[in-house]
Amino acid sequence: MTISIVVLGTGRIGSMHAEYLARRVPGAKLAGVFDVTDSAATVGAEFGCPVAASLDEALAIEADAVAICTSTDTHVDVMVAAAEAGRAIFCEKPVSLDLAEVDRGLAAVEAAGVPLQIGFNRRFDPSHKAVADAVDHGAIGDVHICNITSRDPGPPPIEYIKVSGGIFCDMTIHDFDMARYVTGSEVETVYAVGAVQIDPAIGDAGDVDTAVVLLTHVSGAITTIDNSRKAVYGYDQRVEAFGSNGMARSDNFHDFNARIATDRGFTQPPLQQFFLERYTTSYLDQWAAFVHAVESGGAPPVTGADGRAPLVIGLAAWKSLREGRPVRCEEIG
Amino acid sequence: MTISIVVLGTGRIGSMHAEYLARRVPGAKLAGVFDVTDSAATVGAEFGCPVAASLDEALAIEADAVAICTSTDTHVDVMVAAAEAGRAIFCEKPVSLDLAEVDRGLAAVEAAGVPLQIGFNRRFDPSHKAVADAVDHGAIGDVHICNITSRDPGPPPIEYIKVSGGIFCDMTIHDFDMARYVTGSEVETVYAVGAVQIDPAIGDAGDVDTAVVLLTHVSGAITTIDNSRKAVYGYDQRVEAFGSNGMARSDNFHDFNARIATDRGFTQPPLQQFFLERYTTSYLDQWAAFVHAVESGGAPPVTGADGRAPLVIGLAAWKSLREGRPVRCEEIG
Amino acid sequence: MTISIVVLGTGRIGSMHAEYLARRVPGAKLAGVFDVTDSAATVGAEFGCPVAASLDEALAIEADAVAICTSTDTHVDVMVAAAEAGRAIFCEKPVSLDLAEVDRGLAAVEAAGVPLQIGFNRRFDPSHKAVADAVDHGAIGDVHICNITSRDPGPPPIEYIKVSGGIFCDMTIHDFDMARYVTGSEVETVYAVGAVQIDPAIGDAGDVDTAVVLLTHVSGAITTIDNSRKAVYGYDQRVEAFGSNGMARSDNFHDFNARIATDRGFTQPPLQQFFLERYTTSYLDQWAAFVHAVESGGAPPVTGADGRAPLVIGLAAWKSLREGRPVRCEEIG
Amino acid sequence: MTISIVVLGTGRIGSMHAEYLARRVPGAKLAGVFDVTDSAATVGAEFGCPVAASLDEALAIEADAVAICTSTDTHVDVMVAAAEAGRAIFCEKPVSLDLAEVDRGLAAVEAAGVPLQIGFNRRFDPSHKAVADAVDHGAIGDVHICNITSRDPGPPPIEYIKVSGGIFCDMTIHDFDMARYVTGSEVETVYAVGAVQIDPAIGDAGDVDTAVVLLTHVSGAITTIDNSRKAVYGYDQRVEAFGSNGMARSDNFHDFNARIATDRGFTQPPLQQFFLERYTTSYLDQWAAFVHAVESGGAPPVTGADGRAPLVIGLAAWKSLREGRPVRCEEIG
Repeated sequence: MTISIVVLGTGRIGSMHAEYLARRVPGAKLAGVFDVTDSAATVGAEFGCPVAASLDEALAIEADAVAICTSTDTHVDVMVAAAEAGRAIFCEKPVSLDLAEVDRGLAAVEAAGVPLQIGFNRRFDPSHKAVADAVDHGAIGDVHICNITSRDPGPPPIEYIKVSGGIFCDMTIHDFDMARYVTGSEVETVYAVGAVQIDPAIGDAGDVDTAVVLLTHVSGAITTIDNSRKAVYGYDQRVEAFGSNGMARSDNFHDFNARIATDRGFTQPPLQQFFLERYTTSYLDQWAAFVHAVESGGAPPVTGADGRAPLVIGLAAWKSLREGRPVRCEEIG
Repeated sequence: MTISIVVLGTGRIGSMHAEYLARRVPGAKLAGVFDVTDSAATVGAEFGCPVAASLDEALAIEADAVAICTSTDTHVDVMVAAAEAGRAIFCEKPVSLDLAEVDRGLAAVEAAGVPLQIGFNRRFDPSHKAVADAVDHGAIGDVHICNITSRDPGPPPIEYIKVSGGIFCDMTIHDFDMARYVTGSEVETVYAVGAVQIDPAIGDAGDVDTAVVLLTHVSGAITTIDNSRKAVYGYDQRVEAFGSNGMARSDNFHDFNARIATDRGFTQPPLQQFFLERYTTSYLDQWAAFVHAVESGGAPPVTGADGRAPLVIGLAAWKSLREGRPVRCEEIG
Repeated sequence: MTISIVVLGTGRIGSMHAEYLARRVPGAKLAGVFDVTDSAATVGAEFGCPVAASLDEALAIEADAVAICTSTDTHVDVMVAAAEAGRAIFCEKPVSLDLAEVDRGLAAVEAAGVPLQIGFNRRFDPSHKAVADAVDHGAIGDVHICNITSRDPGPPPIEYIKVSGGIFCDMTIHDFDMARYVTGSEVETVYAVGAVQIDPAIGDAGDVDTAVVLLTHVSGAITTIDNSRKAVYGYDQRVEAFGSNGMARSDNFHDFNARIATDRGFTQPPLQQFFLERYTTSYLDQWAAFVHAVESGGAPPVTGADGRAPLVIGLAAWKSLREGRPVRCEEIG
Repeated sequence: MTISIVVLGTGRIGSMHAEYLARRVPGAKLAGVFDVTDSAATVGAEFGCPVAASLDEALAIEADAVAICTSTDTHVDVMVAAAEAGRAIFCEKPVSLDLAEVDRGLAAVEAAGVPLQIGFNRRFDPSHKAVADAVDHGAIGDVHICNITSRDPGPPPIEYIKVSGGIFCDMTIHDFDMARYVTGSEVETVYAVGAVQIDPAIGDAGDVDTAVVLLTHVSGAITTIDNSRKAVYGYDQRVEAFGSNGMARSDNFHDFNARIATDRGFTQPPLQQFFLERYTTSYLDQWAAFVHAVESGGAPPVTGADGRAPLVIGLAAWKSLREGRPVRCEEIG
């Protein structure tokens, strides 16, 4: 059985998904593409699939599922329409920057009874997944501390930052998801500090480019997250879980695996630079899980609730940063 | 400009090349496929290209180049025909198991004046290449010692082994190429020892499955190579160059990059198991170099002479193993 | 020239210092020992030095310096007496748990004009020092984030914990010193969370055994510290500084450096278990620095102010934990 | 019970042994020292032990054992005298450069019935020992290949080289011992190549400074050894055993354990430079084993036969290098 999927939104991430579905995801088929720009035509031509002229037309394409990769502010409207059209839904993160909107989308999905999976791809990264699995299988006992380091090689364009929801809802949101995923426990309180260290324009946009967040979980676990928009040595992505019986941690990949030793010491190349390269396997495995869920009628592994919770934490982080105090998630919603 | 390439032979390696050329090599186009089996039809259908019914038909397809991926014993005949047809030629290793045949093929290529590149893909592996580059750029001074470890995760089928030319011409031949590539110096003497440790059937086929070879180079450098057909912990591929000013070495990739620590110690996953996965980048970069050479009219980076020399070393290794003494390459030809 | 030193207090750490001074610190001589228990007699016999019957007698021994290794609550009285006796002073951390007492001790030292060095030995660990040096030499630019992981292999006896000042003044105090040392910047605010995860008896003693502290520095840098009293895989001591031009980090040593690979993966031994073993070099280099300072008349590298500041941070951490809010250091003193 | 030991020969290695016995080996006592030079007086004064004026006087000191650390050409005479005096004997490697002499020494030891341990300290290095233990415990199955890399940070003085027995009997002899120790199998054939790459004066002395040796063992295992007298990045000591069920390897220690990452990559410090520092634990554990054997009346772990076999291999290596062919150990004796 093949699951046919229409990709809605063919920007950077949508066109990547289109390629993967067309060529690299066993059991999946790219059934069509749509975008408000010309990019859809290019993508459709490259992968030989129908190009819809409108969202309605895209939802009229006979298909099992849609992938929502449009701009964040349109996610919920598209989700509601797709749910009403009876499509299984894959939706990129964040679902929305507005919690009420998220709830409206999730309600429509629930009413329609269609499967929904949120695009927190890092859960499918084999290295990070090994950490979560070690916890899940009891290999390290109860989790006491979780440390997440997540640093980008360089900041995105200022225009993107302005509509991104800021660092906590755009970038850290992945780490909030990871904290819940690895510890297996909901977040209770959020304390955030931040600074503008990379580019004053980021500060002018009302955002920070350097942040540290401390989370406490219902289980008693404590998570630290540190973020920077610019790590000159590459894309730095590490997750560590420390528990009563041990510790598990994921580490980065270098550009290649060679060392040169001289009388001044040993050198290794920088880390991989680009998230599409670093996380290729996670994107493919994410699709494999979605295809499997739709095919088998089972529950997708990253649910609507998993899409909502990190937004609550992100909004709490912003409130904490503004007010200089720890904020309880229940203050947000 | 796009370089169009017909793939001749669509077994395991040929169909991989076909996919890469069809989809993943910028500037390349899969112009057709041919095989003596049905596999060509499958590959042609998947990538939407013409399927030739015969070698002649394949060479009649309008194209810039061919990739010779047929069985080893047919390489030279195909090479001669392709040269006469004026095609640029990519040829899988080994060119032949018979030195006179190699010379016949190279002569035809030279007479036709077409570019020829031999498929020693490991030269394009970024980790091994970094070792060679360190030598080339003088970072470690003059090379005194080169150590190559090359161990497969498991032996190929006995039927394959029987026609493979044996471990030295099938498997170690990559390491002989690597020794020349990394040291930048021709091999003078070869001393080989071997054993049957993995499977007696390999011995019954007249081959060994465990081997160590010691090479001396014209430059004075000394190379050690150790091979096994079965490393239970994965595909183990390491190259080290030691010189007057330092050392450079490449190392393996684990299945994923995570560690689990308990009171009994730290664990990491096994190494990647499969050569197509381990060497994906090398295959892509190999094609990029070929495409660039054909496009620019420049010399391909792995020449016919580079295809011939490792065969001489391989034949010398067999002679050394049989006679229990070091053999000079000039004894072979 | 040899610097003669009387060791005051010959418990676990004092007898270690006595051995080092007697045998392993070039330019130093163990001039005598004193303790309120019989341990001094044992230590004196082993290293062949006078054993004083009282503090007064110990301070009457002709010597250049004293090492204050008595119980924490007596440090300041001993410091005042040693300063009045004109001795150069090495004092173990923490100087006191009472800030007014610290100030009384430092005032006496200043009045006497004697050199004073505080025993924050980790500054002399070559791995951590390399991180601080990388910052100091500008190799990683301005520090934006500092991450300190400090986990003991097992908790000390409850009786020790009861008089230790609690985790922040006993254990984390080293990390507070490290944060100041590595970032080169004073701490402005402290936010601490903690939990009892290892042993309820630690909670009954009014302490926590698991803690995470977030510090903001005057420079804008942000530090995270995570502590546990029990890491089953060994003594885990890591420091990382992330800055505008790069990152520097120190890592642990395993019990030995060997790996075993099987089809289930690679294994390494646990980390070194014991702080005296892990930090041997730091203790020796700490003494070398003290001896050099006394000999040359220069300033010791870890000053009285360096002894005071981490106590302020530790007290702020306790206040933060109790009140559930970030605390400014200036609230403490 | 304390084992008292007289150190005979107080050059670099002998004075190190004297210090360890005087201060760092539990259950051992330095009972006296002797040397033909003034060095014995210095050592005796430092550690407070008798200084013998002659070998006879040294053997008259009441003691359980002697440590033979005199120049290699005197080892056997001293060994015979010590055996006749009924002393347990620790003897530095090599026992002699003359096989007949070795046999004379071993015969005297056997006649006297005294324990004898040869100073192949590397067997006691915890990292290398972990490799041997992995083999011994069956963790990696039958050994097929053993790789030993052994490179010094710099060559010894030419005067030393002239009387050293050359690289194979002075330096590689440790690796020959390691090959027997790790594989648990005697050596059958030896093939050696060598070059003068570091210093022509070494060649003028009839020696080589770069060497690769290939050994075959009775068990079928094959060993490669590579040596250089000068590795600019530090003292490089690695042992790897590859077998039917896996692989075990030991690795080096860096000067300290820190990394600095910039946009040009990651750097680590060079390796430890000095063998006394690299192998401290091995020297201490070697003494612990000797003390235990003498105390318990058990057999020392490195026997006279273990001292003889590597010399046979070393002499075979010289013969192989001179004659350009593999040499069987039985050709030597």
